[in-house]
Amino acid sequence: MAKCIFCKMVDGEIQPEVVYEDEDILAIRDANPQSPTHVLLIPKEHIATTNDLDDRNVDIVGRLYLAAKQVAADEGIAERGYRMVMNCNPEAGQSVYHIHLHLLGGRPMNWPPG
Amino acid sequence: MAKCIFCKMVDGEIQPEVVYEDEDILAIRDANPQSPTHVLLIPKEHIATTNDLDDRNVDIVGRLYLAAKQVAADEGIAERGYRMVMNCNPEAGQSVYHIHLHLLGGRPMNWPPG
Repeated sequence: MAKCIFCKMVDGEIQPEVVYEDEDILAIRDANPQSPTHVLLIPKEHIATTNDLDDRNVDIVGRLYLAAKQVAADEGIAERGYRMVMNCNPEAGQSVYHIHLHLLGGRPMNWPPG
Repeated sequence: MAKCIFCKMVDGEIQPEVVYEDEDILAIRDANPQSPTHVLLIPKEHIATTNDLDDRNVDIVGRLYLAAKQVAADEGIAERGYRMVMNCNPEAGQSVYHIHLHLLGGRPMNWPPG
């Protein structure tokens, strides 16, 4: 199976603008930003969708949120507010089949969320 | 400090329609649904915002996603797709200051997510 675009970034075959990185997580700016801050938090392990999550992945999903909290603080939007979004499968508009948490902020967000 | 509405539900002082429950998580239908399925997954522990998360909460945040996966399957939308949203602070439109994961599906979701 061809390597997905996020795995290519993790492996250094594509060099995105990295805003946060640790042993297990990479965070990059979205190529089509929908708000002044729009960052994608990506586990380095390839997990296709949230339907593929099991007990083994609980920790990494939780740590995506700690990373999002850190990036929101770095971007100066932690107190104003920020939205975190994860899409699963076609009706949600999942674009890359490697789970990623969208972090959006820097403007008031509307409701419904899409 | 007054008990928040979700803590009142956890303590049985208010009885919502529960769609999922385990030792640490309660899931209920949103009172103002924005899609055919609109469920809130709530940790029983009171955590005001995602800015209050730390290493101690990694596990519960991850397990909200496993619960969302289960509810999506129960609702018959796992394969079609579903969106998960968490709001932090005013610009994101956080309504109750006790973290909760919105699970939305049953219709195509739009972009941007609000």
